[in-house]
Amino acid sequence: MTATIPGYLYGEADRSPVTLEELADLRASVLLGPEDEQALRLAGDVLEDQVEDVLDVWYGFVGANPHLLAVFATADGKPDGHYLDRVRARFGQWILDTCRRPYDQAWLDYQHEIGLRHTTAKKNGTDQADAAPYVPLRHVIALIYPITATIRPFLERKGHSPEQVEAMFQAWFKAVVLQVALWSRAYADVREW
Amino acid sequence: MTATIPGYLYGEADRSPVTLEELADLRASVLLGPEDEQALRLAGDVLEDQVEDVLDVWYGFVGANPHLLAVFATADGKPDGHYLDRVRARFGQWILDTCRRPYDQAWLDYQHEIGLRHTTAKKNGTDQADAAPYVPLRHVIALIYPITATIRPFLERKGHSPEQVEAMFQAWFKAVVLQVALWSRAYADVREW
Repeated sequence: MTATIPGYLYGEADRSPVTLEELADLRASVLLGPEDEQALRLAGDVLEDQVEDVLDVWYGFVGANPHLLAVFATADGKPDGHYLDRVRARFGQWILDTCRRPYDQAWLDYQHEIGLRHTTAKKNGTDQADAAPYVPLRHVIALIYPITATIRPFLERKGHSPEQVEAMFQAWFKAVVLQVALWSRAYADVREW
Repeated sequence: MTATIPGYLYGEADRSPVTLEELADLRASVLLGPEDEQALRLAGDVLEDQVEDVLDVWYGFVGANPHLLAVFATADGKPDGHYLDRVRARFGQWILDTCRRPYDQAWLDYQHEIGLRHTTAKKNGTDQADAAPYVPLRHVIALIYPITATIRPFLERKGHSPEQVEAMFQAWFKAVVLQVALWSRAYADVREW
């Protein structure tokens, strides 16, 4: 199934320079525990058939903000539709991976790959695109807010209790922050990452 | 009042390399608007006499996590109490500044100063401390979660409606993410910030 998503190379990424011990510390910093993993699994079931709707919201947001759309634009300022579509397919899979994958070595490796694909090291290459050379780190961090806040209505749509929705939402929030912290590894001066 | 906090030099920081236009884009990315500014003002009133209680929670969290406490420790592994106290006083003021300061040039300049104080450029110097030389960027990002999630109970304690509490919470969440995005400027390769 996932093999049909171009450029989605989960399980084939180079080893992350981040250690599992560093990952454990980050999990502690965001308070992500076994109950959150359970809540994420439930969120995966809730979101599975809403992925395209979530992506519509996120792509609508990007499209409404020139400084975000610029990331997908070529030097002449025009958004690259093919590149947008390619990223969208992987972004949808990322939603499900966030909910369903164990956060193990393979996951850690792929987080580093995702980070690199936001920087000059690997952006565009996967999709043979000719867009902006990197996603500014500040915007990757800032997007924690919309990527978190916009998910709640989708978590509410399948008749779960307020407590279950809240648990899924908090777990999602933690998982997003954790991943952005990992992705930042590709940007920062390694001595101070 | 604030002049009595050692090292709190709001209004005296060097000019931030970040432009007001870049700040405006970041505000758009976190969806921070005039209603959030109003909600932050209200949060300032709600939190004003609870600042020490909030700091107790945050410092308890840091103290319970060796990888976070290490930031305040000297080479022999012992936390520097004087440094912890100095930072705590400014951290308390930061809560109120987040709620009450206009996000203008002076605020932008001080955000850059705060960022630098997390890196080798300026950490320890303000307090003549001899602790770890920097706060790893990944932990600054990860702390978005606890610094956001732990604030809600304090926002609920003064009898405001669920809608008001939610508005204050969302505005706080946005403001924290916005500031971490700005602080990351001190870490990243400038070309890709």
